[in-house]
Amino acid sequence: MTKPVITSYTWSPDKGGGLVRDMRLRWALEEVGQPYDVRYLDWGEQKAPPHRARSPFGQVPTWEEDGLVLFESGAIVLHIAEKWPGLLPDDPAARARAIEWMFAALNSVEPPVWELIVAKFIDGKEDWAAARLPSVIQRLHVRLDELSARLGEADWLDGGFSAGDLLMVQVLRNMARSGMLGDWPNLAAYVERGEARPAFGRALAALRAGQTAEQPADWPY
Amino acid sequence: MTKPVITSYTWSPDKGGGLVRDMRLRWALEEVGQPYDVRYLDWGEQKAPPHRARSPFGQVPTWEEDGLVLFESGAIVLHIAEKWPGLLPDDPAARARAIEWMFAALNSVEPPVWELIVAKFIDGKEDWAAARLPSVIQRLHVRLDELSARLGEADWLDGGFSAGDLLMVQVLRNMARSGMLGDWPNLAAYVERGEARPAFGRALAALRAGQTAEQPADWPY
Repeated sequence: MTKPVITSYTWSPDKGGGLVRDMRLRWALEEVGQPYDVRYLDWGEQKAPPHRARSPFGQVPTWEEDGLVLFESGAIVLHIAEKWPGLLPDDPAARARAIEWMFAALNSVEPPVWELIVAKFIDGKEDWAAARLPSVIQRLHVRLDELSARLGEADWLDGGFSAGDLLMVQVLRNMARSGMLGDWPNLAAYVERGEARPAFGRALAALRAGQTAEQPADWPY
Repeated sequence: MTKPVITSYTWSPDKGGGLVRDMRLRWALEEVGQPYDVRYLDWGEQKAPPHRARSPFGQVPTWEEDGLVLFESGAIVLHIAEKWPGLLPDDPAARARAIEWMFAALNSVEPPVWELIVAKFIDGKEDWAAARLPSVIQRLHVRLDELSARLGEADWLDGGFSAGDLLMVQVLRNMARSGMLGDWPNLAAYVERGEARPAFGRALAALRAGQTAEQPADWPY
């Protein structure tokens, strides 16, 4: 087959932090050793019609492979993990639990993490932002306390590193990059273990090499 | 094999609306024709140690099957869909797109829907709630406009009914039950098509039959 094609940005608000969701695909592809091509979008192009045909929500990443077009990073990581070995265990029960952690990362942990990011960095200047922030932090702390308790002293969430860890580490990196994992040393160490993987390093270097544009003049934040 | 066991509540805040996430499993099991048993929890029991061992976040539903224990409703619906025919197409590309819509329902549509539910029904009495509400509604409207545009006049999101539709309908039911889908008639009709499926009706009836408890005296809302 030809190489799969993902979409990525020539500039991103995290300034090369690798927090945009194409990083999930790059990391997954590096873990399984599958080369890929990148279709780069300038900031704003993600909302224009050509990309909308690939992504109904006007976001990156997308996936193109021999006529198959996919959006939604979690689904694409699962597609990669099903297609090439290295991200899901062979044992059916262990495989189901790794997929469980993929959904947990995206449906149970990312929403309260993202709520805090929005509350601090997007809504932060609103009159009501300071009064609301404690309730946002409280909800997130409950969830991260639960995650921290389940991880305990283990290296990964369920046995060996899996696609579930890949997504969870990427979700938690939103906190770690802003120094907000201090209350959960085992989660901070877990993120560091993920970032220390050679595949992660190669993915981040490739992402940064593609970020060749300057911040857009009309960027509002 | 023995019948799988899911967890459900004897009472729920939606008063039999079938919005709690065990409804996703009940509906999926009815679609594939697989009998199941239910372990009922009184309200509050979901946070106690016995259930925490099944669910690190102290939530329903969970899944028990011949020693395999899973939490996270999206992962369990996918497990059901992989195990019994009826919820995923056989064609690999169509199957990948159905799974894409499962992730889209849970990672791209549920978060802004849930943000509105929390803003209205949980944070609604806070001093800052009214000032914040327009931005919450605006974010959700953008997302539902995009979803509505992609669905168009089709019956389902990608060909025949799939696990992706099941999850998307359940997410949108949070809006529909409060009469909040009026701006998107095609999404409202889509929800009604889902609710008209015999398997949905059987699942909701079973869920309601299990809700035998009164509202807890200390329920705060």
